[in-house]
Amino acid sequence: MDEPRIAAWDRRVDWPLTGLAVVFLAVYTWQVLQRSLSPGAHEALDVVLTVVWVLLGVDYLVRIALARRRRRYVGTHVLDLLILLLPVLRPLRALRVVTVIGVLNRQLRDDFRGRVAVYVVGTVTLVGFVSALGVLDAERDAPGATITTFGEALWWTITTISTVGYGDRYPVTFEGRVVAATLMIAGIALLGVVTASIASWFLANIRSTAAEAARITEDELRATSAQLTEVLAELRAVSGRLAELERDRPTRPSA
Amino acid sequence: MDEPRIAAWDRRVDWPLTGLAVVFLAVYTWQVLQRSLSPGAHEALDVVLTVVWVLLGVDYLVRIALARRRRRYVGTHVLDLLILLLPVLRPLRALRVVTVIGVLNRQLRDDFRGRVAVYVVGTVTLVGFVSALGVLDAERDAPGATITTFGEALWWTITTISTVGYGDRYPVTFEGRVVAATLMIAGIALLGVVTASIASWFLANIRSTAAEAARITEDELRATSAQLTEVLAELRAVSGRLAELERDRPTRPSA
Amino acid sequence: MDEPRIAAWDRRVDWPLTGLAVVFLAVYTWQVLQRSLSPGAHEALDVVLTVVWVLLGVDYLVRIALARRRRRYVGTHVLDLLILLLPVLRPLRALRVVTVIGVLNRQLRDDFRGRVAVYVVGTVTLVGFVSALGVLDAERDAPGATITTFGEALWWTITTISTVGYGDRYPVTFEGRVVAATLMIAGIALLGVVTASIASWFLANIRSTAAEAARITEDELRATSAQLTEVLAELRAVSGRLAELERDRPTRPSA
Amino acid sequence: MDEPRIAAWDRRVDWPLTGLAVVFLAVYTWQVLQRSLSPGAHEALDVVLTVVWVLLGVDYLVRIALARRRRRYVGTHVLDLLILLLPVLRPLRALRVVTVIGVLNRQLRDDFRGRVAVYVVGTVTLVGFVSALGVLDAERDAPGATITTFGEALWWTITTISTVGYGDRYPVTFEGRVVAATLMIAGIALLGVVTASIASWFLANIRSTAAEAARITEDELRATSAQLTEVLAELRAVSGRLAELERDRPTRPSA
Repeated sequence: MDEPRIAAWDRRVDWPLTGLAVVFLAVYTWQVLQRSLSPGAHEALDVVLTVVWVLLGVDYLVRIALARRRRRYVGTHVLDLLILLLPVLRPLRALRVVTVIGVLNRQLRDDFRGRVAVYVVGTVTLVGFVSALGVLDAERDAPGATITTFGEALWWTITTISTVGYGDRYPVTFEGRVVAATLMIAGIALLGVVTASIASWFLANIRSTAAEAARITEDELRATSAQLTEVLAELRAVSGRLAELERDRPTRPSA
Repeated sequence: MDEPRIAAWDRRVDWPLTGLAVVFLAVYTWQVLQRSLSPGAHEALDVVLTVVWVLLGVDYLVRIALARRRRRYVGTHVLDLLILLLPVLRPLRALRVVTVIGVLNRQLRDDFRGRVAVYVVGTVTLVGFVSALGVLDAERDAPGATITTFGEALWWTITTISTVGYGDRYPVTFEGRVVAATLMIAGIALLGVVTASIASWFLANIRSTAAEAARITEDELRATSAQLTEVLAELRAVSGRLAELERDRPTRPSA
Repeated sequence: MDEPRIAAWDRRVDWPLTGLAVVFLAVYTWQVLQRSLSPGAHEALDVVLTVVWVLLGVDYLVRIALARRRRRYVGTHVLDLLILLLPVLRPLRALRVVTVIGVLNRQLRDDFRGRVAVYVVGTVTLVGFVSALGVLDAERDAPGATITTFGEALWWTITTISTVGYGDRYPVTFEGRVVAATLMIAGIALLGVVTASIASWFLANIRSTAAEAARITEDELRATSAQLTEVLAELRAVSGRLAELERDRPTRPSA
Repeated sequence: MDEPRIAAWDRRVDWPLTGLAVVFLAVYTWQVLQRSLSPGAHEALDVVLTVVWVLLGVDYLVRIALARRRRRYVGTHVLDLLILLLPVLRPLRALRVVTVIGVLNRQLRDDFRGRVAVYVVGTVTLVGFVSALGVLDAERDAPGATITTFGEALWWTITTISTVGYGDRYPVTFEGRVVAATLMIAGIALLGVVTASIASWFLANIRSTAAEAARITEDELRATSAQLTEVLAELRAVSGRLAELERDRPTRPSA
């Protein structure tokens, strides 16, 4: 990260953004699960969601304004833009909340493996919850829908993210299928992260063996170096004695 | 493991706990598969299961009491607590038996790969058997259930843990779906462990190459060190001869 | 690649071949999605597709003619031949377009991981799009077909490549099933590439640790070497002084 | 492999066993696919299959008789025994043919990655073909079966081994489900091997980097060693000259 001004901005807005995301998730959950809301209350919640969305958009624009190498920043943060533009599809809005994980994860920096585990479990749980909300929002009033309660939406989420896919429940609307596609990508990533974690745990003894070998090599090199220092000292002593002999030479009976 | 008292406790209760788990599994299997039990016999078996559960709870509490760093121990053993609290969902009770594998595995410590293989095959077999029991227990009397015999439960278990998920059988009850979710997590882990094992086998030649290179380096360093010892000996001999020459100098015709 | 003449041919035809592939994809897409084409227009498009196919066949034959070790080249490029012969199954013709990715990828050679990401996303997107076209072409007029619109074909493609496979849509014709099999192989490869990328990212710190150790070893070896150079210089000085002493010896009062 | 007598036996029976397996596969394929066989011809083919089975059993017993460490050999070849006992389930008999791959693979020993690829493609193709035969054999006359032609059996095989599992076809008999379970294990192994191959290809540059570092270290160590040899030669020359000086000392004017 060679963008010091963006890093400074990140430090300042980490917690406000997390707060916004939590508000967003709470409001969206309320809106989806409480069907008995009056139209007025529903619209009031929509206003809150829109305000949060605008604030997240402002955050994105500030970042671009702060970037030193603007084109490169936009290029390497395509995902941020995508997540920002998702709300065009309403049930995908909530996926933006997943960015919270990144913020929370920055708080526990102790060990790599632990952070990966927290990240994976956190992301999968949040993506799963948000996808269940989104698919329910998209499907429940569609004709021929098989996902009509939050319980069924959660069950569908689990069978999808594990790539089992019984087919007892599946989305039939366009928006529901976009949520499903997102969830499948998350499932593939989940499989990948789990496998890679196990593989890196298996391979940890390679790392330690290599480190051990390197340590021994370094120790022996240090010993060699110490021996050489001794040799040099000895040689200089020899040289000094020879110099003594030479200095005495003029007094040698040359006549 | 910087918890010597817990390690000592483990050594003492390994076999009793294994025995408890086996009793638990046998009683639960009996209770689920033998439908013709009288209500009295059924309740008697329930008492046995509850006693085993209480004993496992005592074991957990003893561990916490023995722990030096209590909060850390609880934090790193969340899974133990979860497995202990599972029986609130009756068909999940039996999953606790899976901890037996850990105990059995401690008995065969010869090689890493062999132990992983035993662990995976053992865990998958046990989780599969227990899940089939659990899902059958949960589903068989539910309206619209597709899993009503132990054979169907086993077949469903296989299609689920392999993430194939034909959808000819699937759970419809809440408890059955919790069992299914557990099984899917096991399936993802299974895929991960199998892949990681194959990858680490493929990469074994990296390890041996690196070890070989380290061995050569060490050999050459030892040879270098031997050469240096020789150089030093030679130098000291030279130095000694020069000292002889110097000692003789005073007798040189200085007049 | 020990085939300089083929490499030269590749450099010359990279862009023309890409152009051909794009034309092919556009024409095939048009032919499949625009159902209201007159029979004459449909046949005209068929002529274009056949011409492109013949040109790709000529390219394949030129490569074999240019190869130094012809049998070996044919043996290691079985996939090229297979892709060329696929059009016997009409809906598979378009899969040939996937070779474009290889050409495009040669243009961005900066970093390995970036190229893998581009390659994977590009290939999956293109294979998915082409498979959706192909399965729609094969299925839509079949009795009992469940894939009859492009939207359904895309949805089926996503559930298949992720290996979720709900079973709400599936091909029933021979050609559709061949497309499906190709897509499943792509799905398995996709899972593999994602997992391997994550694993190699996890293992990147092994690489850097090893590189660090090697760097230290090299630095110390260089220091040792410098010390030895110094020792040698000192020794030569000593030797020179001794030679001086020896040269003076004849003048020594031997009488 | 510390079993020289078994290795010698292997070399002698490799090709005969391959021949037996091919005969077995051909006869089984004929028996399953040609439904119009007279009962007499069907029984004649059964006799051939039984003879091949007995011969494979003899091979297994000979191996055990030749083994130095019999218990260990049986323990590490449980799979061989399992494959031998499978024919109790008739549709599983043909899976024994898969051992052919091992034999064929021994013929092409050039490079590790190539052999893995041949092994995987060969095994998957053979397991798939044999499973399609087996499931067809088991299912086609079962009530409620969805797999009743060889084409459907092949399609089911592909959807199962890729773990997609649409659920449009699935086995309903016990024997068919055992074939399915075997195929699912093959599918999990396939995913694992593909992923591990890609991962090891990605990690190949770690290997080459490490090898490169080791090569540099070795080169520098060899240079150091050469320098030390030079130092030693120089030192011996110095020592020789000193010896000359000392030899002349007695002639020095000590009187």
